[in-house]
Amino acid sequence: MNDTRLAPKIRLHVAQPLGPAQTVPLEREQANYLFNVMRLGPGDLVALFNGRDGEWLAEVITAGKRAGELRCHAQSAPQRMPPDVWLLFAPIKKARTDFIVEKAAEMGAARIVPVQTEFTNSERIRRDRLQAHAVEAAEQCGGTYVPEVTDLLRLDRLLDQWPEDRRLMFCDETLAGGAAGLSGFARGDPWAILIGPEGGFSEAERARLRGASLARAVSLGPRILRADTAAVAALTLWQTALGDW
Amino acid sequence: MNDTRLAPKIRLHVAQPLGPAQTVPLEREQANYLFNVMRLGPGDLVALFNGRDGEWLAEVITAGKRAGELRCHAQSAPQRMPPDVWLLFAPIKKARTDFIVEKAAEMGAARIVPVQTEFTNSERIRRDRLQAHAVEAAEQCGGTYVPEVTDLLRLDRLLDQWPEDRRLMFCDETLAGGAAGLSGFARGDPWAILIGPEGGFSEAERARLRGASLARAVSLGPRILRADTAAVAALTLWQTALGDW
Repeated sequence: MNDTRLAPKIRLHVAQPLGPAQTVPLEREQANYLFNVMRLGPGDLVALFNGRDGEWLAEVITAGKRAGELRCHAQSAPQRMPPDVWLLFAPIKKARTDFIVEKAAEMGAARIVPVQTEFTNSERIRRDRLQAHAVEAAEQCGGTYVPEVTDLLRLDRLLDQWPEDRRLMFCDETLAGGAAGLSGFARGDPWAILIGPEGGFSEAERARLRGASLARAVSLGPRILRADTAAVAALTLWQTALGDW
Repeated sequence: MNDTRLAPKIRLHVAQPLGPAQTVPLEREQANYLFNVMRLGPGDLVALFNGRDGEWLAEVITAGKRAGELRCHAQSAPQRMPPDVWLLFAPIKKARTDFIVEKAAEMGAARIVPVQTEFTNSERIRRDRLQAHAVEAAEQCGGTYVPEVTDLLRLDRLLDQWPEDRRLMFCDETLAGGAAGLSGFARGDPWAILIGPEGGFSEAERARLRGASLARAVSLGPRILRADTAAVAALTLWQTALGDW
């Protein structure tokens, strides 16, 4: 029994149900990661989560180069859902888009929605790759939940069919006053946070956002923030005022 | 006269004094950037700042491959100093250390101090490279100030000679309560924000921080944040409560 057994440092997201004595077959990439990269073997423990059943300690039963099996022992953390807040952002360069998804998962966004605005350069995204980044961030940050990354949606169409109970926080660089726009709301309401593209919103978009009854503007200070910085700052303001911080 | 003249998108940090009709000789790298990369020529305008004299519109007078000269026209923005807050952080992998410096400059830290803690892996940093990242971030974010990046300092020695009027905010993952630790303070006091290493503080360090009369702990929520995410979140809390947001 090595140190890994006592306090597993490896957390793995799996798709299968987790429960007492539940066996979990590994996919090829997972087996490669655990047994070739991390050099685990039978008897070692890892922590598993699937986004629904909390975190479970699981023991390696069989370890092959391309396959393997784990068996759950006991639940090590309860399932913890993030507050119901979506992060909407306009994709930018590849590396910074990856960062935004990673940060949104760490910061406890429930859903990540890439949006196409009038000034968005990106026409398409790799949804599967972004989803993998969200999984990796959840594995790293000790969370038991992985936010879904949606397909790229057009902002105007999204606003056309906006859910009537979901409030929208957007970041307006022309505004002063910090998070004052969030005061007076109760925790527990559904929200979305919209980070504009680096070129800013168009005049039409800004007018529409300002006119929307569910929308509230906040300020992120006197300096211009890059979109990935703005995503973390906006989630910090929201989580502190209305979320689980 | 092209569009660049009307609204220069290029901002350049220089060392020289800026003022009416002041001429500014360019260094080799600056000349290469303006004239070869960005293809500016005589008559084009750029925005200059030096961290002291505000932002100035300057016109290209001579443009060579390795040298050139600008002349200041008019001040386009006043000098704006950030609040007196330092960001102390334990350097991590190269790319994320670069990000922390970039984010600290964007978020309005006055000084960036890499610190060596008991669980810091990094023994050394490239101070000149980190300083260049801070300059680039200031150029991008529209700021007129560039925070100084100091040499790597040992946390214990830094605490031994801590300035007696500077408060210290540190992020304690064992705590609940968000930014409550910042309430009751007036804006304008000198502060520092300390982001721990990814391995956490040692018990001795934590005890010392908790016992320091000038230190205040805040919580960054129930998920574990990477150091670069924590730096942005901590600066957001501080700027909102005590800074210039």
